[in-house]
Amino acid sequence: MLSARNRLTGEVVELQTGDVTAEVTIDVNGETITAVITRESVENLEIEEEMELTAVVKATDVMVRSD
Amino acid sequence: MLSARNRLTGEVVELQTGDVTAEVTIDVNGETITAVITRESVENLEIEEEMELTAVVKATDVMVRSD
Amino acid sequence: MLSARNRLTGEVVELQTGDVTAEVTIDVNGETITAVITRESVENLEIEEEMELTAVVKATDVMVRSD
Amino acid sequence: MLSARNRLTGEVVELQTGDVTAEVTIDVNGETITAVITRESVENLEIEEEMELTAVVKATDVMVRSD
Amino acid sequence: MLSARNRLTGEVVELQTGDVTAEVTIDVNGETITAVITRESVENLEIEEEMELTAVVKATDVMVRSD
Amino acid sequence: MLSARNRLTGEVVELQTGDVTAEVTIDVNGETITAVITRESVENLEIEEEMELTAVVKATDVMVRSD
Repeated sequence: MLSARNRLTGEVVELQTGDVTAEVTIDVNGETITAVITRESVENLEIEEEMELTAVVKATDVMVRSD
Repeated sequence: MLSARNRLTGEVVELQTGDVTAEVTIDVNGETITAVITRESVENLEIEEEMELTAVVKATDVMVRSD
Repeated sequence: MLSARNRLTGEVVELQTGDVTAEVTIDVNGETITAVITRESVENLEIEEEMELTAVVKATDVMVRSD
Repeated sequence: MLSARNRLTGEVVELQTGDVTAEVTIDVNGETITAVITRESVENLEIEEEMELTAVVKATDVMVRSD
Repeated sequence: MLSARNRLTGEVVELQTGDVTAEVTIDVNGETITAVITRESVENLEIEEEMELTAVVKATDVMVRSD
Repeated sequence: MLSARNRLTGEVVELQTGDVTAEVTIDVNGETITAVITRESVENLEIEEEMELTAVVKATDVMVRSD
């Protein structure tokens, strides 16, 4: 069990891979979540489009905005 | 316009305030998002329960997990 | 209004774009601030040299050093 | 020498200490920088008001905003 | 499987709990690792001294220093 | 003296450089630590394989996992 408090599960809708980092876009109930992770993690987790994936975020990395 | 790529709008369902930091819990379409921000930001934004608030996360702070 | 506590406004003096990420250098009253953001944010915000831009940092991401 | 790219030196103008974390406010040429660090770091660095201190931020933790 | 690249397993040697956050100190082969997480995560994971725990860090949150 | 609480010293065992970012892998007593920093920091610190380097992590960026 991981201490990170935020988890959002969805489907990979886009994957863009660079030399060192990669950008993974996940559709979570119609909302788009974008993660920048290492290219090596993309390979380790065998990430590809249409795969189910959970975005995980530590609570101290979440800001809030009021309108 | 802010560069941070992730925004999730919902309603504040819990607010817990400490000496320096505070924990804000937002319900986003049934998913719970938790943010740890400063107590002073809670005062500046006049955050209170039932208020609409948007969680904002930079893409480099998002990890992914496969099951 | 965003909860992030730190904002520093200046002029873009250098922009270096990679496959996934980009490095934006901002001159703030003679101090240099460097941000690594996604290439897509550079496109979304139409960032280019000599443009005015504000660096934004969450307080939990600031360390301090004494000499 | 540290890899973190951003350093801003100023004077501590406010120090607020909680149980676990503390908030340090630094005046950098008229701009206010706020850091949330551990209470133990405040003790280790013997931080107090009017002391000179440098704020340090990793480039991946800097966002940008256009107006 | 989580994308975060860094994991260090050790024994909890100190636990300090505040209103919102908590500081967990882990001994990893004689090196001390300190984590600031939410108090609620301490409760969820039932963290207590002498327990085995793994510190997890995203690669983009690691800086390096040369001497 | 820097407020960041975690330091782990080891030897660079792999260096992979992209357009904007670079991945530095450090062997710390048999454990592998991976850092993603800017390419420019790799140049500033003259990082190369077999060099001694210290990984530095702010406590708020450390999560924990129980098994």
